[in-house]
Amino acid sequence: MVKVEEAEAIIQAERRDFGTESVAFEQALGRVLAENLKTDRDLPPFNRVAMDGIAIRFAAFEGGTRSFPISATQAAGEPPVDIKAATDCIEIMTGAALPPSTDTVIRYEDFRIENGVATVLTEDISRGQNIHAQGKDKRRHDTVAAAGQVISPALLGMAAAVGASALQVKKLPKVVVISTGDELVDVEETPLPYQIRRSNSYMVQAALQKYQLHAHLLHIPDDAEATKAELALCLQHYEVIILSGGISMGKFDYVPQVLEALSVQKLFYKVQQRPGKPFWFGKHANGALVFALPGNPVSTFMCLHRYFLPWLMASLGLDNPERYGVLNGDVSFQAPLQYFLQVKLGMNGQGQVLATPFEGNGSGDFANLVEADAFLELPLGKSNFTKGEVYRIWPFR
Amino acid sequence: MVKVEEAEAIIQAERRDFGTESVAFEQALGRVLAENLKTDRDLPPFNRVAMDGIAIRFAAFEGGTRSFPISATQAAGEPPVDIKAATDCIEIMTGAALPPSTDTVIRYEDFRIENGVATVLTEDISRGQNIHAQGKDKRRHDTVAAAGQVISPALLGMAAAVGASALQVKKLPKVVVISTGDELVDVEETPLPYQIRRSNSYMVQAALQKYQLHAHLLHIPDDAEATKAELALCLQHYEVIILSGGISMGKFDYVPQVLEALSVQKLFYKVQQRPGKPFWFGKHANGALVFALPGNPVSTFMCLHRYFLPWLMASLGLDNPERYGVLNGDVSFQAPLQYFLQVKLGMNGQGQVLATPFEGNGSGDFANLVEADAFLELPLGKSNFTKGEVYRIWPFR
Repeated sequence: MVKVEEAEAIIQAERRDFGTESVAFEQALGRVLAENLKTDRDLPPFNRVAMDGIAIRFAAFEGGTRSFPISATQAAGEPPVDIKAATDCIEIMTGAALPPSTDTVIRYEDFRIENGVATVLTEDISRGQNIHAQGKDKRRHDTVAAAGQVISPALLGMAAAVGASALQVKKLPKVVVISTGDELVDVEETPLPYQIRRSNSYMVQAALQKYQLHAHLLHIPDDAEATKAELALCLQHYEVIILSGGISMGKFDYVPQVLEALSVQKLFYKVQQRPGKPFWFGKHANGALVFALPGNPVSTFMCLHRYFLPWLMASLGLDNPERYGVLNGDVSFQAPLQYFLQVKLGMNGQGQVLATPFEGNGSGDFANLVEADAFLELPLGKSNFTKGEVYRIWPFR
Repeated sequence: MVKVEEAEAIIQAERRDFGTESVAFEQALGRVLAENLKTDRDLPPFNRVAMDGIAIRFAAFEGGTRSFPISATQAAGEPPVDIKAATDCIEIMTGAALPPSTDTVIRYEDFRIENGVATVLTEDISRGQNIHAQGKDKRRHDTVAAAGQVISPALLGMAAAVGASALQVKKLPKVVVISTGDELVDVEETPLPYQIRRSNSYMVQAALQKYQLHAHLLHIPDDAEATKAELALCLQHYEVIILSGGISMGKFDYVPQVLEALSVQKLFYKVQQRPGKPFWFGKHANGALVFALPGNPVSTFMCLHRYFLPWLMASLGLDNPERYGVLNGDVSFQAPLQYFLQVKLGMNGQGQVLATPFEGNGSGDFANLVEADAFLELPLGKSNFTKGEVYRIWPFR
């Protein structure tokens, strides 16, 4: 048996790099950027008019000119049109490229037009106003998004803006989620009184979708030969095997012995925690990893969020900053185990995350999981946890 | 011009109910549940053995029996096997249905087996131990997930467990995101010096994906007739039109006049805020709504998160609790506008959300948006905002 932190360290030591691939930028949301995204031009690419109005030469205004004949009108998307005389102006629209012969934009509210002449009504004009200067945000070839971050809607928009119609992203591991246990039937079936429906593997598959990871599902019956044949194939085809159930002291749990027979090296078995104690972790000589999670739904879900997803994030090169919540009630837990309490998250007016314990029936209470938002990790070596104390949280919504 | 809270109230008053539809549970992640999900059986559906070991009748143990002949072995998924005599036991596995003739489970660690007889090694046995009692979590036909919540991985797992292979979910509105402006070219194109690439509509489309809302994209040139023809069609085909750009005082911004000509009633124009001041909102007689967002990327993004997404959540019947962050730096802002500051979010050891201001170039700085996590909403009527003060945040990652 290992402690939670030991299990975490052993797993994190097995992080992988699955390489990179190119995807169309419209498909890249939620993937991890694997290149520094650079601008192809200055941002803005030209002196961009920021208000509808007229473009003038400030020197003319400074020299006393208040009435500016309109040389031409220039819409956004049109080539810049220069003024014909130094005291002329261009009627110009937001988004247009400022004509080089002008340097200042006056908005419609501040002048009136009569007979093709714009007369300025205010003295409050300053040189260069209402212009978003070329290169003010970024210079050409500057990095606008560094490698190693999740591609957000804003980043996707930026990729479009700089013409990156394809993006290099981190490859995701090939993952199979395997359910075991002859008591399990398909969702569409009506279980016999001593059977239940498969649910863990769907839950795991759904949780991985957030990372754009589309895991395959497989069910293996409680049979040593079938288990061996299927696992042997999976170890060749997948980089990660997530097992739900099948690892315990039971006579019909063939998984540990089969994994050993298939040269999967056990890195630990059992973690000093509740739920999720009978968690088995190992690796094959070819690098494939086996996360054999306890079959109880809450145990499966906790181990997924506490161990697998942080491993995945590390393997993708993502930071995973620690998150905390304020315990919002007293909790007593006597067993010498690190306790992962189901909590609902809220926020008080001080911007503090409140973690309200969920009265559950222990680790077996799948029903509570639907209402809970996170696990609060209560450390080993302490039995009484008091309202107001701060602990790590593992959100799962 | 309206205040932020007025704009919000006007928009929220136009929330809609788009009805419900049935989807396969595997497609339901991220959708809003529109039915109370109920169990079809007790949870657990039987007295579920929670440890591998033996099942005994506690009265026998109480009566002094310590050695229990093994009547049979019962795996998970097998019909329950009764003991042959009151002092016999069944070797039994986790997940199995407890035989009615037994009432207590002893784990392997607490007995040894010799010649088909299990001898208990501890006195620390209590009636009913290691059994997850039938119906302890939920009774048959109890609600396990109430209508009106986002379908999470745990809920999806629960749907599988109770055999809900299809789920009633809230229908999403049909949304089109329209870009306007002749200065815009496609992502694959190389813009002329006075052109830029379309990016806002991709950004908006990506932000809506979080809600499983797959918006269509459309570009309309700066031409009154084309604008009118396209908008007329959109008002028939879509329930929501999100426009990016085209609403300002410029000569070539045909959108407001065209919308009026098409009987779209203006509900407000301009909001006392930065960025996003020239925001136009209206509705058609057929109920279709038009969110005409300012064309600047940051303005578009802010208005989307501050107005459109809360409208969407309300229309789907979702709560949207206010979120707060602690301003992590001093900010001065003089204009009489509600100011939406780009911030990075972090968390301190007290579980408090810290909002660190992002030094930007004002509302035009698209580049910062890629690095920021949220907008911090700094109220009107105040110019100096001090580190440690708490304000509302609008996260967008």
